[in-house]
Amino acid sequence: MTDHPNEPTAVVDAFIAAIERSDVTAAVALLAPDCEYDNVPMGIVHGPEAVAAILRPMLAGCSEVDWPVLRQSSNGPIVCNERLDRFRMAHGWVEVPVAGVWEVHDGLITLWRDYFDETTYRNQLPPRAEGN
Amino acid sequence: MTDHPNEPTAVVDAFIAAIERSDVTAAVALLAPDCEYDNVPMGIVHGPEAVAAILRPMLAGCSEVDWPVLRQSSNGPIVCNERLDRFRMAHGWVEVPVAGVWEVHDGLITLWRDYFDETTYRNQLPPRAEGN
Repeated sequence: MTDHPNEPTAVVDAFIAAIERSDVTAAVALLAPDCEYDNVPMGIVHGPEAVAAILRPMLAGCSEVDWPVLRQSSNGPIVCNERLDRFRMAHGWVEVPVAGVWEVHDGLITLWRDYFDETTYRNQLPPRAEGN
Repeated sequence: MTDHPNEPTAVVDAFIAAIERSDVTAAVALLAPDCEYDNVPMGIVHGPEAVAAILRPMLAGCSEVDWPVLRQSSNGPIVCNERLDRFRMAHGWVEVPVAGVWEVHDGLITLWRDYFDETTYRNQLPPRAEGN
């Protein structure tokens, strides 16, 4: 979308690329200190440390992570993307259709909000993981 | 966003305005003949007639419909919006956080896809309406 690494779309793309490498440190380095992560049906946390505390165990259970962006648009600080978030776990691939709404200011993500159906996600987890 | 009524964002805005007036005829007049309506966790239908068959009973049960757009962005034919879809029913307001992904070509909507958590919606319905 852009060659400038501070542009909102480029920052979101870099965040997703870091997630796909399971590089949580690189991902949360793109978050503003007071950022909001709203995993809509599951809850809200604030700040890079809290986001890392969710991402690390989630990604540790995956041998592969693939979040293809199907559609994307932006408007000033706002970035919206439609994705299929794919997680390869021991029992197979978990695939979650997601629509993300982001805000990026001064090269840092201040809002990461994902809309998806929680049951669609939970029904793909193995029984033991459901309490996670 | 634009003064041109055929621009993708203006078409989506007009569609939502028609929904808020419960004017299903005006709404589906903005849909392409082969449009896809994907209400992500609940299923896909194609074509204005099929969309009208879903919208008419849904809106008939509401005394007021309010779909405020919280954030919106567009990129060529793609429009993304973050909304809070509010339906006033006999028992009170039902409020559903939604992220919509749209495509508009030649002034007509070819894709309307809404991402949301189905349980969040169903838990707000009165018990009798749950089978709908």
